[in-house]
Amino acid sequence: MISPLVVLLSDFGTNDVYVAVMKGVILSIAPGARLMDLTHGVRAHDVAEGAFLLSAAAPYFPPDTVFLAVVDPGVGTRRKGLIAHAGPWTVVGPDNGLFTFFWLRYPDAEAYELEAPEYQRPTVSATFHGRDVFAPAAAWAARGIRPSRFGSKIESPVKLPIPPPEEGEESIRARVIHVDRFGNLVSNLELEWLEQRRIVIGAGWTLEVGAHTVRRQVATYAEAARGEVVALPGSSGYLEISLSGKSAASELGVDTGAPIQLTRRV
Amino acid sequence: MISPLVVLLSDFGTNDVYVAVMKGVILSIAPGARLMDLTHGVRAHDVAEGAFLLSAAAPYFPPDTVFLAVVDPGVGTRRKGLIAHAGPWTVVGPDNGLFTFFWLRYPDAEAYELEAPEYQRPTVSATFHGRDVFAPAAAWAARGIRPSRFGSKIESPVKLPIPPPEEGEESIRARVIHVDRFGNLVSNLELEWLEQRRIVIGAGWTLEVGAHTVRRQVATYAEAARGEVVALPGSSGYLEISLSGKSAASELGVDTGAPIQLTRRV
Amino acid sequence: MISPLVVLLSDFGTNDVYVAVMKGVILSIAPGARLMDLTHGVRAHDVAEGAFLLSAAAPYFPPDTVFLAVVDPGVGTRRKGLIAHAGPWTVVGPDNGLFTFFWLRYPDAEAYELEAPEYQRPTVSATFHGRDVFAPAAAWAARGIRPSRFGSKIESPVKLPIPPPEEGEESIRARVIHVDRFGNLVSNLELEWLEQRRIVIGAGWTLEVGAHTVRRQVATYAEAARGEVVALPGSSGYLEISLSGKSAASELGVDTGAPIQLTRRV
Repeated sequence: MISPLVVLLSDFGTNDVYVAVMKGVILSIAPGARLMDLTHGVRAHDVAEGAFLLSAAAPYFPPDTVFLAVVDPGVGTRRKGLIAHAGPWTVVGPDNGLFTFFWLRYPDAEAYELEAPEYQRPTVSATFHGRDVFAPAAAWAARGIRPSRFGSKIESPVKLPIPPPEEGEESIRARVIHVDRFGNLVSNLELEWLEQRRIVIGAGWTLEVGAHTVRRQVATYAEAARGEVVALPGSSGYLEISLSGKSAASELGVDTGAPIQLTRRV
Repeated sequence: MISPLVVLLSDFGTNDVYVAVMKGVILSIAPGARLMDLTHGVRAHDVAEGAFLLSAAAPYFPPDTVFLAVVDPGVGTRRKGLIAHAGPWTVVGPDNGLFTFFWLRYPDAEAYELEAPEYQRPTVSATFHGRDVFAPAAAWAARGIRPSRFGSKIESPVKLPIPPPEEGEESIRARVIHVDRFGNLVSNLELEWLEQRRIVIGAGWTLEVGAHTVRRQVATYAEAARGEVVALPGSSGYLEISLSGKSAASELGVDTGAPIQLTRRV
Repeated sequence: MISPLVVLLSDFGTNDVYVAVMKGVILSIAPGARLMDLTHGVRAHDVAEGAFLLSAAAPYFPPDTVFLAVVDPGVGTRRKGLIAHAGPWTVVGPDNGLFTFFWLRYPDAEAYELEAPEYQRPTVSATFHGRDVFAPAAAWAARGIRPSRFGSKIESPVKLPIPPPEEGEESIRARVIHVDRFGNLVSNLELEWLEQRRIVIGAGWTLEVGAHTVRRQVATYAEAARGEVVALPGSSGYLEISLSGKSAASELGVDTGAPIQLTRRV
């Protein structure tokens, strides 16, 4: 039998002990668990980025994966901790919107509050629920404890209002939701959404970001001319803006959150 | 049966091959070992920081964990390599103070020098004992070889003089021993030590660090007002200085080693 | 039985989801595979650095290891994907020179193109073959599918022309091929090559790099005087230039690719 897989995401970085401490806690409870990092490079306290990265990676993981996600600026306040079966997966973490993707994809998922002290560390600190509450819950889930055993049902877990693009008559306002390691700008323009509207950059539409106008859409990074800024369908399902061989983010001076404008050219 | 767990800490970073090479060596000797990273982000050659991070993470790991730690500015000199059972754990690495925490907690732990050539790689380089001496030792330990089999007993393994706070009549001098990813300043003021003296920042005491005076102690990061610098009991058991939503280290211009002054206000 | 080991190298960094997505894909196909990171810190699109790091780490891994390497600036173009048994190992990735070391060491290795759709994801994107082609191939290889099952034989997989040092009468021109985390400069001067020619820095030869002349070769980092720049035999089998306690790269203003000149002094 394959051991249960626990996948961790956080904004803890990997230079501190926080991630290792959570892993030690998990293995002390569920010695057979297999642990894997999704990423710990979420920007500090950026719940929205954590939610985006979870949504982009989760679909590729096998059934029964437990996602333990901790981006938790409200630790120690009255925000709840939760556990839920969401489709084939289990999610554990703070109830602050980090799991928005799962609630949208599985509206019937039932989330439970992490209340039962027998599934927490004996002393719960006010500053590190990742260690004292969430890691133990993920470990017990890996050992087969069902979500409903952890506490009372959460009627309506927090969803982040991921702003969809705003459609005007001849223009669309969107924004950059992630910058990847190559400096590619990932937008909130879903490829499917663009296809339904038959929007292709260069074919009747231009895209403006930073002070730059993008006039061409390509299929692969390699198609762009040296120094050309292009739009292309990204692997996560969103339109990206890319600069051949360089970082579009640095060269255009653009970061997460920057506005993008699409304009119809007749 | 659960495979033995080997937890690695170093100052090698993760962009080079050094960590992967150590792991390859371990798996070549102990194919069933499970490998986990504590961190490889210790500042280059900073044995004291490595010792602090080990001490902060080790207590959360299950019995029988083997800690392989390599922060080794003296590689190739006459400093010894060691292996020891320390309480429920095994430690392997250079005898340079990296394992101070274990010697303080388990004064009866017996350390042995890594001498036996049959537990080393056939050729031992002068620059990479992590690969040639320590990784093989950790792998053989994971396979059940007892520390005393590796060499002669080390009478007094090196302890780092972790300076305790200096107590004056109306003031205490302490220092920053670690800066975490969020820019929180971890001090050498143990919470237990402060409790015994009934010292609470704001209640009769102020704290100075950088050019800043801290006048309030809170229980959670979220209690601080925006832009307020506060003291709070950190999750590792030490008093921390934190700045809501920002990096206290950057904003106060403070790094590891900076002095902290506590003063009694009547 | 020990589960198959898949070792990953890429230029994806660890802050994005790309690495986790590849791992999720692998575990969905080969749930028992053990996954390990070699490094994901290869400089973006730097195939030569990826090839060097692979060559420096691979020899330490056990037989049957599958190396999945993705540094792939040509993704979506006509460059091929390949799989091969090379000596005791299996390699999977783009046919762009990343596996040069394996072709040089095992000239009889037979590489096959990744063509068979049954070993790819149902839809193959133009921008992320790591996820859609290479990760599935590595997973199927871990499950025992032989390279020849994936497609037609590649007659001559791409080899990178790793430039050897250029020998003149009284001088040798070499270069920096890697800078490690400590700022040590790794050259393309193989220790064995230098030994055959009885070349030792300080004993009849000087070395120039940046604007600096190195006049001494030592065996260990610790032998160098504070502030002294020295040559020393590196653990990867190449001559390195090192500055005691500091980064030689920063202090000398030197990066990967910089020229090195050896001159005979009579």
